[in-house]
Amino acid sequence: MTSMPQPEVEGSLRRVAIVGTGLIGTSIAMAAARAGSEVVGWDADAPTLAAAADRGALRPAASFEDAVADADLIVVATPILAVGEVVATALRTAPDAIVTDAASVKGRIIADVAAAVDDSELLARFVPGHPMGGSERSGPEHASASVVDGIVWVLTETDDVDEDRVGSLERWVARLGARPVRLDPDRHDRLVAMVSHLPQVASTSLMGVAAVEEADEPDILLLAAGGFRDLTRLAASQPTLWSDILVANRDQVAAAIDAFVAHLHDIRDRILGDDAQGVESVFAEAKVARLGLAAKPTVRAGVAVWQVEIPDRPGALARITAVLGEGGVNIEDLQIVHSPEGGRGTVHVTVAAETADATADVLEGAGYDPIRLA
Amino acid sequence: MTSMPQPEVEGSLRRVAIVGTGLIGTSIAMAAARAGSEVVGWDADAPTLAAAADRGALRPAASFEDAVADADLIVVATPILAVGEVVATALRTAPDAIVTDAASVKGRIIADVAAAVDDSELLARFVPGHPMGGSERSGPEHASASVVDGIVWVLTETDDVDEDRVGSLERWVARLGARPVRLDPDRHDRLVAMVSHLPQVASTSLMGVAAVEEADEPDILLLAAGGFRDLTRLAASQPTLWSDILVANRDQVAAAIDAFVAHLHDIRDRILGDDAQGVESVFAEAKVARLGLAAKPTVRAGVAVWQVEIPDRPGALARITAVLGEGGVNIEDLQIVHSPEGGRGTVHVTVAAETADATADVLEGAGYDPIRLA
Repeated sequence: MTSMPQPEVEGSLRRVAIVGTGLIGTSIAMAAARAGSEVVGWDADAPTLAAAADRGALRPAASFEDAVADADLIVVATPILAVGEVVATALRTAPDAIVTDAASVKGRIIADVAAAVDDSELLARFVPGHPMGGSERSGPEHASASVVDGIVWVLTETDDVDEDRVGSLERWVARLGARPVRLDPDRHDRLVAMVSHLPQVASTSLMGVAAVEEADEPDILLLAAGGFRDLTRLAASQPTLWSDILVANRDQVAAAIDAFVAHLHDIRDRILGDDAQGVESVFAEAKVARLGLAAKPTVRAGVAVWQVEIPDRPGALARITAVLGEGGVNIEDLQIVHSPEGGRGTVHVTVAAETADATADVLEGAGYDPIRLA
Repeated sequence: MTSMPQPEVEGSLRRVAIVGTGLIGTSIAMAAARAGSEVVGWDADAPTLAAAADRGALRPAASFEDAVADADLIVVATPILAVGEVVATALRTAPDAIVTDAASVKGRIIADVAAAVDDSELLARFVPGHPMGGSERSGPEHASASVVDGIVWVLTETDDVDEDRVGSLERWVARLGARPVRLDPDRHDRLVAMVSHLPQVASTSLMGVAAVEEADEPDILLLAAGGFRDLTRLAASQPTLWSDILVANRDQVAAAIDAFVAHLHDIRDRILGDDAQGVESVFAEAKVARLGLAAKPTVRAGVAVWQVEIPDRPGALARITAVLGEGGVNIEDLQIVHSPEGGRGTVHVTVAAETADATADVLEGAGYDPIRLA
């Protein structure tokens, strides 16, 4: 470790090796190539590596050693259970490279690496990371540089890490289009347990109990409207991916489930006690919290959301999208919020943040009255 | 009660009284007026009645008695705690009318009515109902006949009810554009506890625990991506409405919470036991169940959903909406499914079922290749 300033270190992160070329690894490769890095890839599974190479952003390496030997930066994006060992091998094989990973859990990975590498000089080059992007899909064929655009990319510091290298990686992440956020590993694991892992468990459990009921009551899903669908969408995610993540973040996930169950029991006890006022106060608190969240319609950096009223009739949506298309605006997302009020509808138009003002100009020029939500 | 056939009874449900002119009462009034009924309304709150009358579908009555005196059908859409008493009074006041209600819980309402009316001849005219529509909004100013379009409208039979009257109401409900479904009251209450009341509780609890955590960790919501947002959307619902519903369906909701908690504990125990394979099998089962649900993208009768691939570039959405608009298709909903694959995107276009074929013709004529999902 050095305390000398190394202002140009990130400039040297030119040669990037991606180990594990699934959806997230290949997406990072594509974003890195777009940002001017020279990318080489390696995957233990030959067809996966070939499919990743077909996306045009990385050169397939002949071996793991070939991939990492000359790298300035090595990104380990293998399945979570393999990450510790691969990071350790990468630190030993590549003499100067920064090594980072893409796993959803940090404490377990740091412990795995420390168990395999008992050398603080090597560990100084390991900067644990978590790009919080992805997709319900998997595999390099579904990868895209856009998976990285605007996402929060957590970087965690360890006891051994070299601060200058964290800074270098942080600037490289920003150059890829993501939003680097530094978090202590324990905090990271506790927070993702609550807002990412617990929702996954809750969604799966809700679908699970309904499925058990459905065995006796095939009509049950007839009554399942939008709310049930929203809450169970995550239950369609990849089982292996999630079982490994949950077990790797075992204690934090169990604590989040316990807090959730305690809250559920509190509501149940108020209901069983005919305490409608008590139930109401719990609901009122949650409503305030949710409205606070809704006021920030997206946490993704890099996007803007405009709310626009449109008439509820054929062609109204065509007109606004035509106006935006002719104005050169690329719509990232468009949500129709049906307002059953006097034949008017509301849409939320999400665009890249840098086009926010241009979008408003285009909309106002066509007679709309957009309100910026985010 | 009579066993004589009364084939033309529903034809006589011409004069309809709506008692309680909030969002659902006024929406039913608007759908009934659209279907040719003559509608009179009453609400204990004068401004609410005036606002309902402003929507143009109902004549405001001078009193409750004035509203119900000549009615063929009385729909009680008051807050849930008042329903039993209002139904009982309506049965006594209007000598021949069918009386139904719109409450989300049936067992409690039936017990309330039976406690107030000890006369099986009067009870023969009470057909408990539950139109499963609504909106996160409230009040007659947000009412619309479209709230009723295509929804499941549960009718429950009681020990005393006259079967012919259930049939009459069923046909009237269908004429309004809804989908009548007969369910035993206990089954109704158990099923809605699972697919409607439990999701509401789960969503509120999830937001509640995150809000507690946020007090110490303001960064937590920075990490809250789409999944968390989907799962907590319901937490923004009306607290009073929900506290009354949950307490009215007390035992079934408590049982649903218990089943959910047991499922959560099962997952937690597998996680704490490092049983990744056990977690995976629970997730795999839920995934199968959820994909079965996704294969029916909507339970609403009366709509069709087309999946269409479009290029992911400015103007692509404009083009498809223009094509549909010019073809006279009214888009009910449009969901952009970002596929991060080679610059292509996928949209789900929801239209009224009767325009499904015309929509496909319009899309195919313009070179798209729509796939029908529902």
